Amino acid sequence: MSLTTRGSSYLGKRARLQQGLVSTRAFSISAPRARQRLVILGSGWGGYEVLRGVDKKAYDVTVVSPNNYFNFTPLLASCAVGTLEFRSAIEPVRRYCPQVTAYQAWCDSIDFKAKTLRCMPATPPAPLGTDLVTKENIANELETRVHNKPFNLHYDKLVIAVGAYSQTFNVPGVKEHAHFLKDIKDARVIRARVLECFEQASQPTISDDERRRLLRFCIVGGGPTGVEFAAELHDLLGTDVKRHFPTLAKLARITLLDVAPSILGSFDRGLQDFATKKFNREGIQLLTKHHVERVEAGKLFTKEEGEIPFGMLVWSTGLAPNPLVQAITDVEKNPKNHSLITSNHLNVISKETGIPNPDVFAIGDAAMMKEHPLPATAQVAYQKAKYMTKKLNALSKDQQHLNPFEFRNAGSLAYLGDWQAVYDATEVEHVNTSGAGRTAWLLWRSAYFTRTVSIRNKILVPVYWFMNWIFGRDLSRF
Amino acid sequence: MSLTTRGSSYLGKRARLQQGLVSTRAFSISAPRARQRLVILGSGWGGYEVLRGVDKKAYDVTVVSPNNYFNFTPLLASCAVGTLEFRSAIEPVRRYCPQVTAYQAWCDSIDFKAKTLRCMPATPPAPLGTDLVTKENIANELETRVHNKPFNLHYDKLVIAVGAYSQTFNVPGVKEHAHFLKDIKDARVIRARVLECFEQASQPTISDDERRRLLRFCIVGGGPTGVEFAAELHDLLGTDVKRHFPTLAKLARITLLDVAPSILGSFDRGLQDFATKKFNREGIQLLTKHHVERVEAGKLFTKEEGEIPFGMLVWSTGLAPNPLVQAITDVEKNPKNHSLITSNHLNVISKETGIPNPDVFAIGDAAMMKEHPLPATAQVAYQKAKYMTKKLNALSKDQQHLNPFEFRNAGSLAYLGDWQAVYDATEVEHVNTSGAGRTAWLLWRSAYFTRTVSIRNKILVPVYWFMNWIFGRDLSRF
Repeated sequence: MSLTTRGSSYLGKRARLQQGLVSTRAFSISAPRARQRLVILGSGWGGYEVLRGVDKKAYDVTVVSPNNYFNFTPLLASCAVGTLEFRSAIEPVRRYCPQVTAYQAWCDSIDFKAKTLRCMPATPPAPLGTDLVTKENIANELETRVHNKPFNLHYDKLVIAVGAYSQTFNVPGVKEHAHFLKDIKDARVIRARVLECFEQASQPTISDDERRRLLRFCIVGGGPTGVEFAAELHDLLGTDVKRHFPTLAKLARITLLDVAPSILGSFDRGLQDFATKKFNREGIQLLTKHHVERVEAGKLFTKEEGEIPFGMLVWSTGLAPNPLVQAITDVEKNPKNHSLITSNHLNVISKETGIPNPDVFAIGDAAMMKEHPLPATAQVAYQKAKYMTKKLNALSKDQQHLNPFEFRNAGSLAYLGDWQAVYDATEVEHVNTSGAGRTAWLLWRSAYFTRTVSIRNKILVPVYWFMNWIFGRDLSRF
Repeated sequence: MSLTTRGSSYLGKRARLQQGLVSTRAFSISAPRARQRLVILGSGWGGYEVLRGVDKKAYDVTVVSPNNYFNFTPLLASCAVGTLEFRSAIEPVRRYCPQVTAYQAWCDSIDFKAKTLRCMPATPPAPLGTDLVTKENIANELETRVHNKPFNLHYDKLVIAVGAYSQTFNVPGVKEHAHFLKDIKDARVIRARVLECFEQASQPTISDDERRRLLRFCIVGGGPTGVEFAAELHDLLGTDVKRHFPTLAKLARITLLDVAPSILGSFDRGLQDFATKKFNREGIQLLTKHHVERVEAGKLFTKEEGEIPFGMLVWSTGLAPNPLVQAITDVEKNPKNHSLITSNHLNVISKETGIPNPDVFAIGDAAMMKEHPLPATAQVAYQKAKYMTKKLNALSKDQQHLNPFEFRNAGSLAYLGDWQAVYDATEVEHVNTSGAGRTAWLLWRSAYFTRTVSIRNKILVPVYWFMNWIFGRDLSRF
């Protein structure tokens, strides 16, 4: 029933849309029944969770995201070394279609008064998309922005969950020569590149010096992402690579750089030391208190040591503001990181009046509560999304939803390789034991595992863990 | 034991290799024990099967292939629509390392007198490979050939199994705007492109005419590959796409073109009709007796109908000679398709003397027996490889291996979608029943399944068949 309604309204909309941009009127006309139009911006931890939980009969839901999937970020590092298959770490947005409308697009600007969004398709414009040039490419933002036609959307309720970009601190060459690890696309190119390095190093025409350069894997950023990738990569080098490239494995080396005096700076001191000792023991080189000044093809330059060559560089030094968030001017923003300031009920706050906007909410890495600022983590985004869903479902029944958002810290975990992890519980209520070692590892795996959203992946993830434990990871590069 | 021997000799070789090209002498010196050096060119149905079966203690085995994996080609069409995950259809060559040496490289020329090969690395040259430009790309043949250093290899026994390229009949625009379906890389870009077409068509800024163009999927070539891809694509459109893009699914259309009067020309007449009727019934447009004159971005031009727009074009019109095979001049070749002519014992034949070369063999799509020419199919390549393995293992024990190669035709199968296939047994000994329908389908699946080489994939393939049967295919595009 709801299927056909959405279906026809969809076509109806299309017809109108062909005259160019969609006016607010056109949309309110085309809206089926009296359902309010809820627009969700983004399909990450915040946006996807709202999409999942919100009552799709109560709202006419539209998702606008440059990706048509959700990244289960805790598994990206495993995917990047082949411990898991890529698709076991993502969830398709379209699983909720046609009950919801999904546009693979960027939102460029928001008119809070007119309640409209200006969006730009994130797919290559036809027929350009049919050229082999763009075939396999990560959607080329520039090209699509130049050649695509923008469109407007009306909203009654809006959830801004656009997340953040990777922080480069404007270090020259990072965008050109480093890999980020925020998206499954990044994991795929990292996996391909790691294996390519070993294939290149296997060529008989290459000197052992060139081999050492190719097999030096640098990671900038000693936070959980950088540490977990270093750990996963070390697992790969110590097992499958060692088995299949015995002479090359000896030449491989992992280097982890950070400006801070220690890795895992956000963790309890004792756990920092545990991680540091473990990495030192395993020969993972830690260059803390090091500043990267520029990056070129195959080499980076630090203030302290000068040139460090690499075969692959992963860059993970925190978050930079999202272009949309930068473009927004008429709501309150944090002067430091430019994220959107919200009330304790997660409403954005008008700069003019200082009053919370009852129809617009902001969650995830793009948002920050005025009174209780929280770190930009998946955990916070996920819990805010859960709260959002409750609130939206209550509002749709004209019930008031009065209690403000409260964060329940479940602690932080970081995988250290070799079936071990550190678990920081110092801020967890009623718990004051932090852990390290095998117990923490089990906790880590199960915590992540039970949060892997679909049943499909609840099956696939253990299947791959088991398969790769038995048969080893696949080293094919394609 | 054999590990360490290979290991050290490997290092020994490397040291010498650094002075530039490797001389024949250097190699014969570096050869551990008196083992003969067997070089296998290619890792397809022929090369991979020889690699798998040959006695690695009896031979010092080296594989030279531009891919570091084997494509299980019967599953490529399934992978291209997401019925199977890509890695379940490939087998890594490095599985047999370090017992064998593997170079990801092209062989450019063979000196049959000096028994040496000239090879060119197929990996991007460092540090170029570290640029994001080439990161995710299909190994860019031109760039690598320009910037890489070539190297020489010596052989005592040589197996040429380099396969063939895709035939384009020099139709302009095919290489630029069409997808082939010979490799897992092709399957990946096809899957990404099909889903991209639907995402593009979902944009509100696009007209229904543009939608119809984007959702027109053209396939040129009515052989088994083209037919099976059309069938798999039709399965996808009729199930997951219909569920998630109901209004767009109505606009989608599959068109299969061929110059011949019927599809599956190599099959029994009755089976051709069965397939034709089935496709007609399902609304797959068959444009037989059609000639494609040129291809542009988003459209192709036929002599009979003029312009036909498409969102994606798959091109599968048979085989073209491999560059290496074209370059070879001093052995007998088939004047028509330029493939290497071999004796019934699969030895290549000297053009000068007309005598079979006792040390050089050719199998697979690059080869053809003088007296009993056979079609260029996986089945023939596989059986020749099995024969090769027996012969090589016998020769290593100085046993004679006298009986010539004999082909046992196991019939031909083609999947028609909807759990049905056609099985042509007209040439199978002691069998004279061809089949169509569900029985043929079961036969088809099991036949392919039992040939899926590794245990890993023996597990993964049914897991994915089951998962996608229950949960549907993943429509995420990345």
